[in-house]
Amino acid sequence: MMVPPAIHLGLEISVLAENEGSSARLAATRVGDYHDAATVLAFAQGVDAITFDHEHVPQSVLRALVDAGVAVHPSPEALFVAQDKLVMRQRLTDLGLPVPDWARLETPADLAAFLADHGGRAVVKTARGGYDGKGVRVVSDPSEVADWFAGLSDPSVDPESTGGALLAEELVEFRRELAQSVARRPSGEIVAWPVVESVQRDGVCAEVIAPAPSSAGRLADMAEDIARTIAAELGVTGVLAVELFETTDDRILINELAMRPHNTGHWSIDGSTTSQFEQHLRAVLDLPLGDTGTFEDWSVMINVLGGPTTGTLADRLPAAMADQPSAKIHDYGKDPRPGRKVGHVTVVGDDLDDVVFRARAAADHFLD
Amino acid sequence: MMVPPAIHLGLEISVLAENEGSSARLAATRVGDYHDAATVLAFAQGVDAITFDHEHVPQSVLRALVDAGVAVHPSPEALFVAQDKLVMRQRLTDLGLPVPDWARLETPADLAAFLADHGGRAVVKTARGGYDGKGVRVVSDPSEVADWFAGLSDPSVDPESTGGALLAEELVEFRRELAQSVARRPSGEIVAWPVVESVQRDGVCAEVIAPAPSSAGRLADMAEDIARTIAAELGVTGVLAVELFETTDDRILINELAMRPHNTGHWSIDGSTTSQFEQHLRAVLDLPLGDTGTFEDWSVMINVLGGPTTGTLADRLPAAMADQPSAKIHDYGKDPRPGRKVGHVTVVGDDLDDVVFRARAAADHFLD
Repeated sequence: MMVPPAIHLGLEISVLAENEGSSARLAATRVGDYHDAATVLAFAQGVDAITFDHEHVPQSVLRALVDAGVAVHPSPEALFVAQDKLVMRQRLTDLGLPVPDWARLETPADLAAFLADHGGRAVVKTARGGYDGKGVRVVSDPSEVADWFAGLSDPSVDPESTGGALLAEELVEFRRELAQSVARRPSGEIVAWPVVESVQRDGVCAEVIAPAPSSAGRLADMAEDIARTIAAELGVTGVLAVELFETTDDRILINELAMRPHNTGHWSIDGSTTSQFEQHLRAVLDLPLGDTGTFEDWSVMINVLGGPTTGTLADRLPAAMADQPSAKIHDYGKDPRPGRKVGHVTVVGDDLDDVVFRARAAADHFLD
Repeated sequence: MMVPPAIHLGLEISVLAENEGSSARLAATRVGDYHDAATVLAFAQGVDAITFDHEHVPQSVLRALVDAGVAVHPSPEALFVAQDKLVMRQRLTDLGLPVPDWARLETPADLAAFLADHGGRAVVKTARGGYDGKGVRVVSDPSEVADWFAGLSDPSVDPESTGGALLAEELVEFRRELAQSVARRPSGEIVAWPVVESVQRDGVCAEVIAPAPSSAGRLADMAEDIARTIAAELGVTGVLAVELFETTDDRILINELAMRPHNTGHWSIDGSTTSQFEQHLRAVLDLPLGDTGTFEDWSVMINVLGGPTTGTLADRLPAAMADQPSAKIHDYGKDPRPGRKVGHVTVVGDDLDDVVFRARAAADHFLD
């Protein structure tokens, strides 16, 4: 999704893809393993800047790029905070930002103590490698994450892959989940999109409403302040998405960080003057950032999760397009698979109920 | 510009480009000569449909594709009307559509007679091969197009390249130029964007205002009716752009036709729910057509003609972006050259004066 704005802006983009079948096939693509520093260094010859569409590139590879004089955005130091949830929690706590109660867990006894202090339940997360609900469990007894603790002390498991400890967090009573995206460029400029509501289903973002209903004023200001502070204090370059809880007692707590264009910002492709993908390109090239205004009062983005059990999304295009001519349909060209994000649909307009209806109606065509 | 919507819709696009340096380098590109039927037939293996971004593909090549069973959109029959201005004038006249007075010119005497009937001045056009003001001259004496007549009778000139005659048209007294774009798919559905005003400079489109100011009602209806009639009667598939004169006596006359996404529709990339490029893809694949509504009251598109005399457009991006963060900048990646269309800028908003100001201010950064 970074390729379309690159084409419009006349920027040349090259992609290091994991495999031939990746959705990045339309850009100049080299296939290679991003864990291998030599592969990535060879790829980086002649580019002006390197960025990522996930957080899993090893620190050793990132630092090899920096040592070779490549402009890496976000920087390894900033990205590390998004790669390791324990580091993230510590940095946010040090910055005085609102986070759930948390603890570093090296042993089951550490978790038992945390449970005792938090009503007998907690969220346990692996420090590294989780996404979309993976690496997250709600537990009431340390035995429920015995396998994760065993991994920490298993000499055959690379400590680099685990971060050496688990993270415990209080089970936050929240009214809804929000997400705040900002972009920052190396010279310091920061812009923010409106805070959005992210409706989760089975731990995965299912729908996004931009802006979050009833968010104008205090809520929007708090969310934007938090994200701007994180971007500035951590020196983030590119897009930063901050996932937030709106608690039942009207607080905002930081859940997760992503330092890249994020699913909760996909609405901006069709709903904002500058999409998160164009903005990310501008930011990593240290170009002035674009206007983040919206065309219509509401944008609603619905993920196509899993897709149809027979055939492809392409087979369903005619029916979806005929039914909802105002829907912006995005087909990632991935094979349908239960739970997989294979596409999304965005609708914009001035009547929220109508916009939600049209977006869901279009997206439903891509499911059984 | 057809590649970005193809990426979003999950459509695979292949490009037969004239040379390596073309702006189409981001899509799967084969380099070859579109005048050579064997080259085009080989390229067409395995595609679902073939379309064009200009009208210059020879009829012999188009018919070879059809004979080989390739879906060609627009069809050779329809495209022929856009390729040959004499054919176009005759077809539009036969359809009873409003056109300037015209005549087929085989000899200077034919032109002398036409001049005598039209106040001593006329527009003379080559039937084939002209664009952006090329192949068009305003004359008051046949000697001013003696070279063109000589070409018609020169046995070394392929009659296929000239069409065998010239076209004379009355010099229309017009208030302004308009353009009406529609899209039609093979199964018959037609959609229309609002009629736009096209401001010409030296025979080239310089600015487009969408919709055309003061066009609501009768003017918009007439323009849309004309374009819908042409699309339906000629069986056009894909985007059809109809260039129109609004005469000083409040008539609408058809100037030119283009059967492809057209410069006067570039505003739709940033100003309409469905851009002309997405719509063209939908239409040539016989997919249901998308909504042609606009987000804001006004969209203004300014062509970057020529570009800077030193350096590239990319060098000017930082200043343009910093000055006009709401401008959508399109850099075609072409080398600057006097008069060449090397990019465009679009701004949308609800105050026309403000939108025009911002668009011009952004575009000016790309000129000396």
